[in-house]
Amino acid sequence: MTTDILITNALLLREPGAGEELERGFVAVRDGRIDRLGPMAELGDRPAATTIDAGGALLMPGLVNTHCHAAMTLFRGLADDLELTVWLNDHIFPAEAAHVNPEMVYWCSKLAAAEMIMAGTTLVADGYFFADQAARAFSETGLRAVAAQGVIDFPAPGVPEPAENIRATARFIDERQDLHPLITPAVFAHSPYTCSPETLQKSKALARSRNIPFFIHVAETGQEQGRIAGARGDSPVRHLEALGILDEQTVCVHCVWVDEEDLDILARRNARVSICPQSHLKLASGMAPLAAMLERSITVGLGTDGAASNNGLDLFREMDICAKVQKIKTMDPVAVRAGDVLRLATRDGAAVLGFADRLGAIREGSLADLILVDLDRPHLQPFYGPDLLVYAAGGADVRSVIVNGKLVMHNRQLLTIDLDETMARVRELARSVD
Amino acid sequence: MTTDILITNALLLREPGAGEELERGFVAVRDGRIDRLGPMAELGDRPAATTIDAGGALLMPGLVNTHCHAAMTLFRGLADDLELTVWLNDHIFPAEAAHVNPEMVYWCSKLAAAEMIMAGTTLVADGYFFADQAARAFSETGLRAVAAQGVIDFPAPGVPEPAENIRATARFIDERQDLHPLITPAVFAHSPYTCSPETLQKSKALARSRNIPFFIHVAETGQEQGRIAGARGDSPVRHLEALGILDEQTVCVHCVWVDEEDLDILARRNARVSICPQSHLKLASGMAPLAAMLERSITVGLGTDGAASNNGLDLFREMDICAKVQKIKTMDPVAVRAGDVLRLATRDGAAVLGFADRLGAIREGSLADLILVDLDRPHLQPFYGPDLLVYAAGGADVRSVIVNGKLVMHNRQLLTIDLDETMARVRELARSVD
Repeated sequence: MTTDILITNALLLREPGAGEELERGFVAVRDGRIDRLGPMAELGDRPAATTIDAGGALLMPGLVNTHCHAAMTLFRGLADDLELTVWLNDHIFPAEAAHVNPEMVYWCSKLAAAEMIMAGTTLVADGYFFADQAARAFSETGLRAVAAQGVIDFPAPGVPEPAENIRATARFIDERQDLHPLITPAVFAHSPYTCSPETLQKSKALARSRNIPFFIHVAETGQEQGRIAGARGDSPVRHLEALGILDEQTVCVHCVWVDEEDLDILARRNARVSICPQSHLKLASGMAPLAAMLERSITVGLGTDGAASNNGLDLFREMDICAKVQKIKTMDPVAVRAGDVLRLATRDGAAVLGFADRLGAIREGSLADLILVDLDRPHLQPFYGPDLLVYAAGGADVRSVIVNGKLVMHNRQLLTIDLDETMARVRELARSVD
Repeated sequence: MTTDILITNALLLREPGAGEELERGFVAVRDGRIDRLGPMAELGDRPAATTIDAGGALLMPGLVNTHCHAAMTLFRGLADDLELTVWLNDHIFPAEAAHVNPEMVYWCSKLAAAEMIMAGTTLVADGYFFADQAARAFSETGLRAVAAQGVIDFPAPGVPEPAENIRATARFIDERQDLHPLITPAVFAHSPYTCSPETLQKSKALARSRNIPFFIHVAETGQEQGRIAGARGDSPVRHLEALGILDEQTVCVHCVWVDEEDLDILARRNARVSICPQSHLKLASGMAPLAAMLERSITVGLGTDGAASNNGLDLFREMDICAKVQKIKTMDPVAVRAGDVLRLATRDGAAVLGFADRLGAIREGSLADLILVDLDRPHLQPFYGPDLLVYAAGGADVRSVIVNGKLVMHNRQLLTIDLDETMARVRELARSVD
């Protein structure tokens, strides 16, 4: 009964956002799960294959990114300071048509996976084309992922014939036995304005039949409703409701332009929401009504969106901006607190992706996705409490990362892949883009 | 004619925000100034005391923080998620009354100086009590600073008798010959609502007589006008205008609640403005009308504010949030671009503080305040251009820092002070606060 990894002398943040008193303790990891934890006094004699003396660093659950398009790292900073439709139609869609292929998705997703792990993210929900290549990249890098194959009613990378989009997605899902155990396959219908009602219903039916998550971009801009062909309701959310799309395995991404009735529907259906505050700001889409969502007990997670609309994948920065922007949205500094966004980025994000009670807290029996945050830095001194993780910490403060009981980064060194090679490959791909 | 420091193989960002094509080159530093620069082909044989091979890292002017209360690092994260007046009256003012003393200002300003240098800031405008101790801390750490002594009509740390506040400030200024050449002394009148018209006029007269900058917090919240005793105008800015306070050596800090007429006055008087976007969000004060300021060619710089209301002093993060928030303020993603905030954080910030044409660009003859940014990181790949410094880089990406021709940080190691001792001293001081 040897422990795989034993972390000692760590300041334990067991339940982010719960307001607990932090104490120094140990965590023992075995077979991918948290086996035991407790104060240092209860450590006793515990043989371990690997022992990490945290030296007072903070140990917390890994962060959960509920929305990303990992391979879009290739387009990071390619077209900044533009309105969403201009950005999408004049820059991103043409760049995707020209440059997205299996090799690009593999290398650029791998770069994103490295970036996320190095910033403390241990679970990501990704949506893109050639999802099999993204899944392969995540597996190799050691990142847990929900990898969703994109469905859209246009000729798309890897799916030149739109009529084949559901079948191609079914094929990806049903081949999941070939994928790494860290990967959950899923379906991503692009949006109500790029998928017909029929496509939406068929893709949701596919997800239901396989009992897997279904994602869709919804209500990102104020113009969206006007772009929906064959609208069945007078808002994007009511359109989805009329089509029977909303349930607890549907993740509605963005939800910036939702009214009270939309929020009531989302709450009633127990649909999940992913908000991407930085992307919403950068594309001038707006500010999602997070406080109103939390009042209704809607389960909300944070997402970075793709690197082309952010431009980084650091959830610490996302937490910071999320909390601060909500204070302006409501003009109330108390409406959304640091603890609330810590919970969004851990426990609630895990629940959004179907990992409720398995991830997002340090508990015996939970999956061992853990990060060690170095507090011994000038910008984290003094450390009165975990609010500082939101308002001052950054991804670069993460020292070590464990995913599924395996050490994937230690002392800022990524242990799973050749980072230099990955960066060089992406730079090479970028040469033809610029 | 030996060069002091020679930086080779650097990607040169000479004029942040100007849209230049970046090229690899060298910069030679001598006697605190940029002596020569050019493409690598023109390097020739150039003996130097210290040579730094940048290996493709980006060299740019150091960042300028136009508003900080450095010693408030002691109160970082002590009281988050509160409205400004509650935060100030129930938490910060009592904590200051109990804990601010010369030793506290010295050690906590030193921590802030270390934090800023490590995040690429080379010039800060600081305003606090015991400004002589802050100046001492900045000097020792090697940070260039405008150190302003606070004036307020309450009993204040170091100035128990308010009637003495102008005299105490004059004494600090006139003893500046004892200070390090990196320090410019200045006057900081707290605000129109905590300083009487007479105190404002006397403190501005003092600054004018010594030809030094004058700072004041103005129009931070919508309630400010109602709190001004003896208001001479119907807005805080018009109050200052009526008192004859506004000129090109007056820095108006915040300016969140300013109307068109206020902006016209600021432009006409050529008064300088410092905005602190994160502080404005966190305290739910609002969003400063930056686009409207830039339209009027008002000279604006970025500030972090104190660590208690931010909670970090990283200007890269401040640039990011500033650009993104302005897109929401205007609902126009084009209104304030990445290049605009890069200029604010360098050239324009330098102009706000009286260093126009001497700092903020890499030019022959400029003061040698330079930073080297490591691009060889997953979140900065690929690097299509300097917009990424705003939307993806963080202070932790800064590899080396030169201030006034002296290397103060190299390969993330602070070369001037004992960082561990400084952090330990601040932790010790924090024990009595919590």
